Amino acid sequence: MTGPVTVTTCSNIALIKYWGKRDAERNIPDVGSLSLPLGALQTVTTVDPDGRGRFELDGREMSERERERILALCRRLGVDAAHLDFCTENRFPTAAGLASSASGGAAAVVALIEAFGLQLSRDRIIAETLRVSGSAPRSLIEGFARIDPVGDGVSLRALPVPAAWDLRVLVVCTATGPKKHLSRDAMAQSRTSPYYDAWVASHPSDLDAAEQAIHDMDLASLLATMEHSTLKMHAVPVTSRPAIIYWNAVTWAVIERVRAIREREHIPAGFTMDAGPHVKVFCEARHAERIGDELRQIPGVVDLITTEIGHGPIVQRAGAAPEPWRLPA
Amino acid sequence: MTGPVTVTTCSNIALIKYWGKRDAERNIPDVGSLSLPLGALQTVTTVDPDGRGRFELDGREMSERERERILALCRRLGVDAAHLDFCTENRFPTAAGLASSASGGAAAVVALIEAFGLQLSRDRIIAETLRVSGSAPRSLIEGFARIDPVGDGVSLRALPVPAAWDLRVLVVCTATGPKKHLSRDAMAQSRTSPYYDAWVASHPSDLDAAEQAIHDMDLASLLATMEHSTLKMHAVPVTSRPAIIYWNAVTWAVIERVRAIREREHIPAGFTMDAGPHVKVFCEARHAERIGDELRQIPGVVDLITTEIGHGPIVQRAGAAPEPWRLPA
Repeated sequence: MTGPVTVTTCSNIALIKYWGKRDAERNIPDVGSLSLPLGALQTVTTVDPDGRGRFELDGREMSERERERILALCRRLGVDAAHLDFCTENRFPTAAGLASSASGGAAAVVALIEAFGLQLSRDRIIAETLRVSGSAPRSLIEGFARIDPVGDGVSLRALPVPAAWDLRVLVVCTATGPKKHLSRDAMAQSRTSPYYDAWVASHPSDLDAAEQAIHDMDLASLLATMEHSTLKMHAVPVTSRPAIIYWNAVTWAVIERVRAIREREHIPAGFTMDAGPHVKVFCEARHAERIGDELRQIPGVVDLITTEIGHGPIVQRAGAAPEPWRLPA
Repeated sequence: MTGPVTVTTCSNIALIKYWGKRDAERNIPDVGSLSLPLGALQTVTTVDPDGRGRFELDGREMSERERERILALCRRLGVDAAHLDFCTENRFPTAAGLASSASGGAAAVVALIEAFGLQLSRDRIIAETLRVSGSAPRSLIEGFARIDPVGDGVSLRALPVPAAWDLRVLVVCTATGPKKHLSRDAMAQSRTSPYYDAWVASHPSDLDAAEQAIHDMDLASLLATMEHSTLKMHAVPVTSRPAIIYWNAVTWAVIERVRAIREREHIPAGFTMDAGPHVKVFCEARHAERIGDELRQIPGVVDLITTEIGHGPIVQRAGAAPEPWRLPA
């Protein structure tokens, strides 16, 4: 045992979307994804192997179900949770319905590895993180992250953000309250969509196009591919039986406005949505305030968080300075 | 020549949607459709073969382009348009963006046939009407109309509305002004969607399911299939490159409300949308007022028209009573 450790991770947002599993048990995705970490959406998780059995989430005691997910991860990692303290907090602005499974999953795995001094291979770490959440492995690294399904698992690659690229993400909250559909169930139901196979088949070319756009620092092209991937993703649950509709009227009011700003002022800005009604808008830093001011005026927008690009996991031990954590090569 | 004639036709609304062409020149659709005529949305067209060359649309002189479309139809039908008066009026409430090509196309063909005393086969009439508009043949008959693409053309069948089925359609207008995309262009662009082939392939089973639901008078099943077909249709332009988005924020506010009413009160009511932002809601007559009152309250709803099920074409000659027109067997 190496003692208590605190890990900070950033949530991430997929530009090329993840939706659908080929193996529900091990959480193997049917499609890859490509994401950016969100600096303002962080999870902070403190693990003490020699504690008093405290399991806390956002300052309250965990439910039996939440605790069981941590204990299952401990069993898979082969660590002794008899005296474990596991306290985790999502340091997000209060709007509900923003994915915390990505940062939370990555933080849990990294914190347990570090607190128990585990020596795990890159592939094992990725596989365990994936099992917690399909979007969590992307929070294990710095910059753009690309996942591809490979055989029985996934590959994960870091695509550096070009230094000159000062991007912002506006998280536009369009509703309060918890989300309506568990992603796990919604992904299973999505297999009833007649478009599911075409979603999977057409996906790799979006990943490649986005990677090329990042390489070229071509924001307009990246945003176009992102919006296309988003609309393709949402079209799958929407055409399932019964239909799963994540968006609401405000979602579309925001999207309309983003498209109007782009058309009117030739500002590169693009939208994406995850499995919920909120809209995330990508743009350059110099346009973020202007766009944010306009979107905030839309009736029904309940919160707007502007975030910089985040970082990889950061580890802190008692009495030591925070240090970046690196996924083994 | 048999002299001046006035033809009244109803517009129609597809429950199982038409979208996409396999032959743009002859307007052959890639998928069938199934519709109901809308009693409150009528076109009235008066044709006089021995007139003074008047071409009017909604009380104003036709544009060169509008006139040319009529003259092209005259040439195809082999009638002499040298002295033709052709005056047509869409007797719709003033909301723009409601499809008038269906009733207008059917009225034009029937009026020219009757005014010039043409003897045309059923297949020829259907083919000529189809060429004017893909949804126009459905306005040639009474009750539910089913189109299927067959070889080089289409078949058209009447599915009688069971007498006990007192249905209403609420046309909920969610915007003013003309529509943003010509359907002709949007259908061509839709072929860039990765979901296009699956749209075409999965379509016949929706037609069969809807026909079965009509036979069984199973409104809940009919509405479920209609909504599924609607969402599948809209998912195609939405996933085209570039994306074509017909709906707006109000569209989704109305859809949300329809789904909420259904869930809350177990009232069978279902939505559909065509190539525009308006929503059409189907329900039984006894629920129409209640639902209409609620939908009218939604901010952004600019008009709401409740319509009964319409009829087939009606022909009137000077000094004679109006008579139903029948498509030859």
